Amino acid sequence: MQAIQLENYGIDNLKLTEVPIPSIGENEVLVKTTAASLQYLDLLLTENTAGFNVPLPFIPVSEGVGVVESVGKNVTQWKKGDRVLIPFITRWEAGQITPYHNALRTGMQTSGTLAEFTIQPENTLVRTPENLTDEEAAALPVAGLTAWASLVTQANIKAGQTILVQGSGGVSLFALQIAKTFGLKVIATTGSKEKEQKLKNLGADEVINYKEIPEWSNEVKRLNNGIGVDVTLDVGGNETINQSILSVKEHGYVGLIGFMSGSQLTFNIVPLIMNYIRLQGYSVGNAQELKELVNAIEKNNLKPVIDSIYGIDQTQEAFLKLKSGKAFGKVVIKF
Amino acid sequence: MQAIQLENYGIDNLKLTEVPIPSIGENEVLVKTTAASLQYLDLLLTENTAGFNVPLPFIPVSEGVGVVESVGKNVTQWKKGDRVLIPFITRWEAGQITPYHNALRTGMQTSGTLAEFTIQPENTLVRTPENLTDEEAAALPVAGLTAWASLVTQANIKAGQTILVQGSGGVSLFALQIAKTFGLKVIATTGSKEKEQKLKNLGADEVINYKEIPEWSNEVKRLNNGIGVDVTLDVGGNETINQSILSVKEHGYVGLIGFMSGSQLTFNIVPLIMNYIRLQGYSVGNAQELKELVNAIEKNNLKPVIDSIYGIDQTQEAFLKLKSGKAFGKVVIKF
Amino acid sequence: MQAIQLENYGIDNLKLTEVPIPSIGENEVLVKTTAASLQYLDLLLTENTAGFNVPLPFIPVSEGVGVVESVGKNVTQWKKGDRVLIPFITRWEAGQITPYHNALRTGMQTSGTLAEFTIQPENTLVRTPENLTDEEAAALPVAGLTAWASLVTQANIKAGQTILVQGSGGVSLFALQIAKTFGLKVIATTGSKEKEQKLKNLGADEVINYKEIPEWSNEVKRLNNGIGVDVTLDVGGNETINQSILSVKEHGYVGLIGFMSGSQLTFNIVPLIMNYIRLQGYSVGNAQELKELVNAIEKNNLKPVIDSIYGIDQTQEAFLKLKSGKAFGKVVIKF
Amino acid sequence: MQAIQLENYGIDNLKLTEVPIPSIGENEVLVKTTAASLQYLDLLLTENTAGFNVPLPFIPVSEGVGVVESVGKNVTQWKKGDRVLIPFITRWEAGQITPYHNALRTGMQTSGTLAEFTIQPENTLVRTPENLTDEEAAALPVAGLTAWASLVTQANIKAGQTILVQGSGGVSLFALQIAKTFGLKVIATTGSKEKEQKLKNLGADEVINYKEIPEWSNEVKRLNNGIGVDVTLDVGGNETINQSILSVKEHGYVGLIGFMSGSQLTFNIVPLIMNYIRLQGYSVGNAQELKELVNAIEKNNLKPVIDSIYGIDQTQEAFLKLKSGKAFGKVVIKF
Repeated sequence: MQAIQLENYGIDNLKLTEVPIPSIGENEVLVKTTAASLQYLDLLLTENTAGFNVPLPFIPVSEGVGVVESVGKNVTQWKKGDRVLIPFITRWEAGQITPYHNALRTGMQTSGTLAEFTIQPENTLVRTPENLTDEEAAALPVAGLTAWASLVTQANIKAGQTILVQGSGGVSLFALQIAKTFGLKVIATTGSKEKEQKLKNLGADEVINYKEIPEWSNEVKRLNNGIGVDVTLDVGGNETINQSILSVKEHGYVGLIGFMSGSQLTFNIVPLIMNYIRLQGYSVGNAQELKELVNAIEKNNLKPVIDSIYGIDQTQEAFLKLKSGKAFGKVVIKF
Repeated sequence: MQAIQLENYGIDNLKLTEVPIPSIGENEVLVKTTAASLQYLDLLLTENTAGFNVPLPFIPVSEGVGVVESVGKNVTQWKKGDRVLIPFITRWEAGQITPYHNALRTGMQTSGTLAEFTIQPENTLVRTPENLTDEEAAALPVAGLTAWASLVTQANIKAGQTILVQGSGGVSLFALQIAKTFGLKVIATTGSKEKEQKLKNLGADEVINYKEIPEWSNEVKRLNNGIGVDVTLDVGGNETINQSILSVKEHGYVGLIGFMSGSQLTFNIVPLIMNYIRLQGYSVGNAQELKELVNAIEKNNLKPVIDSIYGIDQTQEAFLKLKSGKAFGKVVIKF
Repeated sequence: MQAIQLENYGIDNLKLTEVPIPSIGENEVLVKTTAASLQYLDLLLTENTAGFNVPLPFIPVSEGVGVVESVGKNVTQWKKGDRVLIPFITRWEAGQITPYHNALRTGMQTSGTLAEFTIQPENTLVRTPENLTDEEAAALPVAGLTAWASLVTQANIKAGQTILVQGSGGVSLFALQIAKTFGLKVIATTGSKEKEQKLKNLGADEVINYKEIPEWSNEVKRLNNGIGVDVTLDVGGNETINQSILSVKEHGYVGLIGFMSGSQLTFNIVPLIMNYIRLQGYSVGNAQELKELVNAIEKNNLKPVIDSIYGIDQTQEAFLKLKSGKAFGKVVIKF
Repeated sequence: MQAIQLENYGIDNLKLTEVPIPSIGENEVLVKTTAASLQYLDLLLTENTAGFNVPLPFIPVSEGVGVVESVGKNVTQWKKGDRVLIPFITRWEAGQITPYHNALRTGMQTSGTLAEFTIQPENTLVRTPENLTDEEAAALPVAGLTAWASLVTQANIKAGQTILVQGSGGVSLFALQIAKTFGLKVIATTGSKEKEQKLKNLGADEVINYKEIPEWSNEVKRLNNGIGVDVTLDVGGNETINQSILSVKEHGYVGLIGFMSGSQLTFNIVPLIMNYIRLQGYSVGNAQELKELVNAIEKNNLKPVIDSIYGIDQTQEAFLKLKSGKAFGKVVIKF
């Protein structure tokens, strides 16, 4: 089968090659990949700039969707032709993650989705929402699920609350859409004039340009009747964490979902303690949460934001688009 | 001041009379009532058909709104002219109810809202939503808050779930609106052809006429891809409880919020245990939850459903309208 | 292999016979049973007195423990000789039960533990606590886990609270021990003079003889400074439910875990609503909760209460002992 | 009345003086102080080393207990002679803290407990446990309640889990005792040979001397079967935070409850995100939680650890003992 395999680190080395089709076990499913979607993490692993040292050769990319090609003899839940979401963390059905699950991250500790076929255990596949194309659905297993698990399971968002979403990455845009679906007020930040209107079109009630207002936590409060927001997902690390903490109210939730700006985090602890703030490291949720997200998407006809779609032979261009920081929504690769 | 005072039980005895204005303490607020709203409980107490034996003379009605007339010398949170919601359970600020709070129910254990003025402790008054008139807001302190506390705090509803709302009482209509605000699918029941369309206009995705389908739990599942709903609020007691239990899925929530059809409840316990179902007795929530509801109403511009508005001198007509069972939404009395 | 197989309903028909050893799949484990433990449900199914109509022939009994005999080729978590708890509901790893799991109850919808060998998927086996013999551990997968999931996950018990445990069945005795481990005060009921002292020996702070005090809810409150308890697990259905509801305080938890006294339940709904009481149908929890219980048992050296141990050839006597209602603790069958 | 009043910052300036007795309102209680207990925060405020700049003159100290001397005319819950705990955050009855409550911290934003009398609103006083002397109970309102709210309400500790407690400060010792009461395994750290045995006497299952093992997170895991603990309360800030994060398992809870080592915190974010760790800023809980703690203390006869008791005229010595870092348990001042 065809796959993008990395022989050495670097975007230049993302090359289409032939590898053997893996064989399935009794409880496994062979999934034909139809679309994959890029995370910032894929870039860090491919360029090896964060010290992960993924063993080479390596098939990259953590999220994707596909169609069932064949099933193992004991599989009862799926049949050929079913459209499915490929989980980032295999075998994590429900409840809390364990060390066992923690070592099974697609495109990180195991082969990624830039391959024509992948093998999946039957229990953690999730059906693709009927209202989405495969390209639209490709961003659900990581970006969508990270936003869902953070906001819904962890932060327990409610109508009438206010959320602050930061920038235009995949998780932030899903967070915006999910928050509007739950009846929250949304304040969004961006550094780009052009994206301000796009954020409003997506449903943001207020937009702050952080280049114009570097100490934006005060502006956040001004736009929320003088009080902090209930929830924010911090995406900037050291560049934003102090402003994030100052932007939330008492018992507020600050999600930490990425490390784009480096692995060391420094902030003032006093408001964290005085205001009872929660700083929660989080990544994707489990299969049960992904099913919840699928239901929410179908019942509210949500459409994930796609920046651009590339062919599998344009994988390098797709990575370069992601790296440019100019994407608004997800960069997708189509098979 | 003027008040409706019951000297003997019965709707006929709801008569306008003069009573003294109560005097306020240091931490109390004198509220001029502007609108009240009727519950089925008000009818049970007025006609004394449920054995509560409220001591006479008695000023009835549990919910209402008003405007601050004057404040005690230590009051810092309110000033003359503020629009406020009058709590059903006085002094219950947050957390769980205690025996102390449980004995302070307006229009039940203490004087009701059908009086020109009421005395309120400052801590459990809540501001009226800016987007509502006083008549619209009059149904928030009991019907609105019961729906909110049940669905949001207790059942923890989420986008993508499905709720079954039963009939057209105040709590059920608020439940419908709150559920839509949170992104749920709503299935509603009614016994009236005419109300079917009204429920759809309010946002119900599906409507079942229980007169046509007495065993409606199967129809509920058919309309939800063959699986039970996540939440329902049972309003019919013995007439509906078995169908309610059969309508919810595993770990489903069946709220019990009233006793219109009598105080004894009988049902089959087997599906309750096999399906891990929760039966939750509930009434209104606390002041913190009422503030949450006010925020949700403002941010999503929700409009409570008003059936009709009567003058204080038409109180008997208002009670008769409630008793007729023909109201769609709340019956309001204006001062 | 040897097994107790029911050809017709009735204790008399519990006879030792030979049946084929099942063969294991790639992700499955062959477990040699060492001990089984009886539930009241086993009696209902064997005598077919509750209308379950289990298809015959049938190997009964829902809980048991054993030792790994061999493993499928993909199994990584277990090896020959490991001591394991056999789950009641197979494949339910974590989170909420689904219809899929709900149809996989050992000794009810699938073959039971009164067989020399059983086949188990690797993911829902749980290690046996090191401080217990197999006979002691045999009651963990159903009775122990039902008490744990009800008290810890659902009722969220805390030190300083009070629990009411009813009678001397397996779940109630586990509930007593778990509650003491969490620092609760325990009030126990019994109808037997002889068992009063046994309950105190197990840690009960107070014991009520319900034969002497039929309206025991008042006595419960008297023994708890005049206020209701936080939690109770009702075991008597119609005979006890009204007293159970009156025994708990505001926001109290009444667990419904069995149907010994019939399938119809009738009670007064008014205190349920006025006091915000939760009635929760529940059965066993999932594998993650069973692991939690194992940790709690080891770290606090808890010893399950065993009434008596029978050989596999004394299965009928074991069932008769259970049926007599005279057991204090679990009736165990040893292989 | 007598009070310790600070005219200028510094321990030397803690001097006994005469100030007027405050007068009570209708819903207030005059409490005669019997004992106070010192926090590290009292030291920071008194020496003004953390930039709080408390306005002078100032009566310091945040926690204390007393006896009701007289009550306002509307007070129904208390009478002369009742033993009561003085809350750190006045008027915070239940639920989440708000900006209103957040500005009412005893001994910080309002006068402290080193005064013969204090005025308290009736609703947030809590009765003193019957099994404790006033000196023993003096540490409940801040140190005890911070440990309780963190472990019980926030981290939701359960029997069978493991907790890591750090050092011998008041909160850490309460955390140790509360955790043992809930059936947890406790691993404690200390830098002192002498305190090792004291920690074991209090119930610690394992003790690590962090001077001997600076990278103690590995040792924590070694003592817990190779896996991280469920909960820790970090007390050392920058000196300990990385080890704290590495000591907890997936979904672990790291409480941040103080800022002894400065206000800036720096750590590696990668394990926080990969392991789904929660960093929770916290301080004391509300009155409802303090009542829960009182019940837990009485029902399990817990005795807070007192290092030493000083007279009000030895206040400077008491502060110096606290500052020495040599106290094991609370430093108490008796009136």
